[in-house]
Amino acid sequence: MKHIQAAVIGASGYTGAELTRLLVRHPSVRPPRLFRLNADDAGAGDIPLNGNAPIEPFEWDGIERESFDVLFFCTPHEVSRELIPRAIARGFRVVDLSGAWRIKRGDSRAVYGFEDADPDAANALDASSIYGLPELHANEIGHAQLVANPGCYATSIILALTPWVSDGLLDLEAGVISDSKSGVSGAGKAPSSRTHFVEVSDNLSAYSVFGHRHTGEILEQLGLEQRHFQFTPHLLPIPRGILSTIYVRAACGVTAAELDASLRDHYADRPFVRVFGSARLPEIKFSLHTNYCDIGFSMEPDGNRVVLLAALDNLVKGAAGQAVQNMNLMLGRDEREGLQ
Amino acid sequence: MKHIQAAVIGASGYTGAELTRLLVRHPSVRPPRLFRLNADDAGAGDIPLNGNAPIEPFEWDGIERESFDVLFFCTPHEVSRELIPRAIARGFRVVDLSGAWRIKRGDSRAVYGFEDADPDAANALDASSIYGLPELHANEIGHAQLVANPGCYATSIILALTPWVSDGLLDLEAGVISDSKSGVSGAGKAPSSRTHFVEVSDNLSAYSVFGHRHTGEILEQLGLEQRHFQFTPHLLPIPRGILSTIYVRAACGVTAAELDASLRDHYADRPFVRVFGSARLPEIKFSLHTNYCDIGFSMEPDGNRVVLLAALDNLVKGAAGQAVQNMNLMLGRDEREGLQ
Amino acid sequence: MKHIQAAVIGASGYTGAELTRLLVRHPSVRPPRLFRLNADDAGAGDIPLNGNAPIEPFEWDGIERESFDVLFFCTPHEVSRELIPRAIARGFRVVDLSGAWRIKRGDSRAVYGFEDADPDAANALDASSIYGLPELHANEIGHAQLVANPGCYATSIILALTPWVSDGLLDLEAGVISDSKSGVSGAGKAPSSRTHFVEVSDNLSAYSVFGHRHTGEILEQLGLEQRHFQFTPHLLPIPRGILSTIYVRAACGVTAAELDASLRDHYADRPFVRVFGSARLPEIKFSLHTNYCDIGFSMEPDGNRVVLLAALDNLVKGAAGQAVQNMNLMLGRDEREGLQ
Amino acid sequence: MKHIQAAVIGASGYTGAELTRLLVRHPSVRPPRLFRLNADDAGAGDIPLNGNAPIEPFEWDGIERESFDVLFFCTPHEVSRELIPRAIARGFRVVDLSGAWRIKRGDSRAVYGFEDADPDAANALDASSIYGLPELHANEIGHAQLVANPGCYATSIILALTPWVSDGLLDLEAGVISDSKSGVSGAGKAPSSRTHFVEVSDNLSAYSVFGHRHTGEILEQLGLEQRHFQFTPHLLPIPRGILSTIYVRAACGVTAAELDASLRDHYADRPFVRVFGSARLPEIKFSLHTNYCDIGFSMEPDGNRVVLLAALDNLVKGAAGQAVQNMNLMLGRDEREGLQ
Repeated sequence: MKHIQAAVIGASGYTGAELTRLLVRHPSVRPPRLFRLNADDAGAGDIPLNGNAPIEPFEWDGIERESFDVLFFCTPHEVSRELIPRAIARGFRVVDLSGAWRIKRGDSRAVYGFEDADPDAANALDASSIYGLPELHANEIGHAQLVANPGCYATSIILALTPWVSDGLLDLEAGVISDSKSGVSGAGKAPSSRTHFVEVSDNLSAYSVFGHRHTGEILEQLGLEQRHFQFTPHLLPIPRGILSTIYVRAACGVTAAELDASLRDHYADRPFVRVFGSARLPEIKFSLHTNYCDIGFSMEPDGNRVVLLAALDNLVKGAAGQAVQNMNLMLGRDEREGLQ
Repeated sequence: MKHIQAAVIGASGYTGAELTRLLVRHPSVRPPRLFRLNADDAGAGDIPLNGNAPIEPFEWDGIERESFDVLFFCTPHEVSRELIPRAIARGFRVVDLSGAWRIKRGDSRAVYGFEDADPDAANALDASSIYGLPELHANEIGHAQLVANPGCYATSIILALTPWVSDGLLDLEAGVISDSKSGVSGAGKAPSSRTHFVEVSDNLSAYSVFGHRHTGEILEQLGLEQRHFQFTPHLLPIPRGILSTIYVRAACGVTAAELDASLRDHYADRPFVRVFGSARLPEIKFSLHTNYCDIGFSMEPDGNRVVLLAALDNLVKGAAGQAVQNMNLMLGRDEREGLQ
Repeated sequence: MKHIQAAVIGASGYTGAELTRLLVRHPSVRPPRLFRLNADDAGAGDIPLNGNAPIEPFEWDGIERESFDVLFFCTPHEVSRELIPRAIARGFRVVDLSGAWRIKRGDSRAVYGFEDADPDAANALDASSIYGLPELHANEIGHAQLVANPGCYATSIILALTPWVSDGLLDLEAGVISDSKSGVSGAGKAPSSRTHFVEVSDNLSAYSVFGHRHTGEILEQLGLEQRHFQFTPHLLPIPRGILSTIYVRAACGVTAAELDASLRDHYADRPFVRVFGSARLPEIKFSLHTNYCDIGFSMEPDGNRVVLLAALDNLVKGAAGQAVQNMNLMLGRDEREGLQ
Repeated sequence: MKHIQAAVIGASGYTGAELTRLLVRHPSVRPPRLFRLNADDAGAGDIPLNGNAPIEPFEWDGIERESFDVLFFCTPHEVSRELIPRAIARGFRVVDLSGAWRIKRGDSRAVYGFEDADPDAANALDASSIYGLPELHANEIGHAQLVANPGCYATSIILALTPWVSDGLLDLEAGVISDSKSGVSGAGKAPSSRTHFVEVSDNLSAYSVFGHRHTGEILEQLGLEQRHFQFTPHLLPIPRGILSTIYVRAACGVTAAELDASLRDHYADRPFVRVFGSARLPEIKFSLHTNYCDIGFSMEPDGNRVVLLAALDNLVKGAAGQAVQNMNLMLGRDEREGLQ
């Protein structure tokens, strides 16, 4: 099989740098071309001495369709929303790591405040893009022209809940709550008072209560209503990693053994989900620098309350690793290539 | 008023050291006598160069009733369970910072596995001891011989929930969930793999799911049933501080304004609870090194779900500061003395 | 004695906030007036719920000479360089926490690149300002109109070396090297890639090798030549605290006992220097949140090499605490007031 | 080439776990056998769910000579000192990651306080073992039966200084000082007050001033006298990584360009040393999770003082990665195999 040629647009942020690292190590990928959108993003120094190609200014002129098997957009969502329709029109296959194309029901504009230059084209893309969670949509990803790489929080929550929701093991009316915690790289590389070391260290804070943008993709992928689900993100004083502590109630009569079996059945052939069951609870450190999402739970003795835990590395399974997994599926490779 | 003479038994742990610091600064307290229970706890080096008295081995012979206004026990709960009945029999007034006497309904033995030498005396003390949360029990504390200083998690959760529970503003049948996170000093000073820097840093883990010992005192103080409440503690990679993110549903028709008013009414005259209301969410750093418990909340627009947040410093309001506040009340002082 | 009225100009940065905290607690100081230089510095939220006065925009019109006993400038050095000549001309007494007036020999312009509007006035102030290290210049500080509060690194290095240099106990020709490490608050509150949590955590980096601006004040205060002294600062992944590890050689025949005696003699009556001698090495945590500078050393057995260690909290003894100590001396108070 | 079969004795510590991870990923190594010396070291849970073989109790009976190409000892130095003579006598090839066999001049007994059961055999092994720094001794390592893997601090210091010392570019009489800083994993996995999260976080401390055991191997490998060199280690509040800030004086007339050329010449063909020169200073984060040692320097303008910086990951190039590099050389492989 011929080697893959990829481009990373927006290579200087944390996600772009992690993706570059993964692509450089990938046995079937040639050194990727790296692009940035403006001079401020130069940041070449952030990937020191690693033999990468320099990060070039992005211009459509330099991007020939025949030269690239896939374009990765690690750009802000409004930039992805603007550039990707043009990439699709030129025939490129695209993995977008922003939130621009994740929500399928057409309310991306409302959630993200997009003003699309061509609303009809945007609507069409909203409808045709594939939500890039390989554990749910491997087949569609294989044929997709545009894959919308999931949000980091969303990946942890959707992977944890999908088996029980789809097997009907939960009392959804009792509510599903995800108390999620993320390391600071999830907030991006742009300096702000929010990411200042002194503000974050020795601290923990909640944010975007009842209003985080990942809520939309979570509801859609799980088929839940707003009233069933709520989600509170917190900023942890660590550079990377997510832990979602999810509170649910099992449906009447459902046992811990059934819950355990549901998880194991769903993920029996999925290489990047590790089911801990009840034996050991996932912790952030177990999945750091890997493409694994670890899932475990604890059920109340003599009751139906369940604490479901999911951990992953927000830059790998929550972003760049998942993007490589999607690329592998799009180009007919083993999804594990370059990720182990 | 004459100055207070106190003794700290178990002065070498984190709680004992923090308490010593607070007592040394207290304008009405003479330098406290410091005791340890065994040679292993020597640890004098942990309070370097602060002019404290040395930490002496504890023996009843050296502790004259007339010399001490109050004894603080910063000892493991089984030690407190053994020593405090003897202190009470000798007429001392006691603040116990362990979990030995916090549960009033008499099931301490079950929760903590105590084997009391004199079960009748222990039962009597279980019944007569006062739960030392000054915002709830200031009067009883003033007359108590034994004050059981609350648990750190419990303080954050009880203070946050008391106003709404007692005002009947919650739909308790929908369940109350506290997702709580604590810094490592809450795990004590004894070295273990659990407190090893390399294990804790860059990590987050849940523990004691459905089984934490603070659950009993929380249920009792709030008057809740087991089925109403659940609580998941997590270990944060910071030295100190607690944030409890509490999920509740408001009773039918209750508004955010009513929730806000309930908090403000309950704590109008309480100097160590800061009600943030909905304007700003509490974060751990705001209360570090203070005796404040900060409380805020966010209510779902067009719904009855509420996220209630409480933050405090586990070594101050969650332990030593609250113990000083209790001492102040027991000895007829202004509860704020030495704590601002 | 009447209470002190102070103003803090530049109250929203880390130094200004720490100074505000210390002034609010000071028993002889009325609530300080707080000023900021531009709207960006609003940052009132950074001192949440502490009952402080709001931070007002700074204008000379609002600052009556008779209303203020002292003005603290927590402003960038170029702002201090511009505003303070005008404050002095209006008769105010000033403590400047920037580097604007620390260097006495008149080469501030070269080091900091100042372009003074009135070079003669600036030269005069360069000459008349007092270097605000109370352990060296208590008398002059008492009479000064302008006190230049020392740099944080400089405070640790000058306090550690002054006794041995002035007692002639060192072989200066063999060179003096300070390998210094500081927490991130020393880099200020302005967000930058340098202070981003992800860049700092799990890292250590050296910077400004052979070129840090504190070098000038260190040389001047110690009376050393450039060739005698070098200094390498490092950025530590902690919010606050400095440790300087200083490498010197004792002069021929000088013993560890003499070195120890020199430190103890110099600081016998100085309340904020703790001499550890050789018994225990200073660590950053011992001095955090205090106004102490801790000094200790270890001498080579059978040799003349000495490792001298000094630790302090860069926001307290390295900035705001020292500023309060200077204010106390300027206004005839006990220098310890409000600092213990 | 046939695949390599290795055993890791002492697989449950940080070094053993890192080595196991590297061997599992190595393309030419079969799954290693893992051993522990006593039940306390079980710790299997520390390498969760990674498909490793279980960690077996170590007994000579289970270790057939013909089954293993190499034994790695990740054991305390006194255990290595006892077991390795027996392994050598049985004909095994050994990489020892402890300090037991690093010092060649025969004073290991004095430095480490060994009491060898068979002093003659120990002396012979002291003499025949090879110091496992591949950048210095690749040939000897290729033929060695026992390779003593260097200390983590020592690796950073020796690699940084070797070029200039061997090219005669330094004024050694002026002294060489290494101010070194290490993350906590360097202190091992055994819980102690020294590695307790609360003691380490927000702190920095020096230790073993004038007495660290790595000094001996550094002096031997560089051919320096005690009077030329001193070394102060510090404990950083990070899990892994070392930065050595080394102070030297260039010999008369030596230029920065010559210093730069010396580094580049020595390491031109060495894949795991990255020479930054003067363009950029090494930081700990650049080398984390890699087998690189990064070296850079800054020379005084118009002077001969030089600050030389070396950074590496103490668990990789400072321990397990270097051990794999040594194994590759011993078994005739490309030294880069499994390390990129």
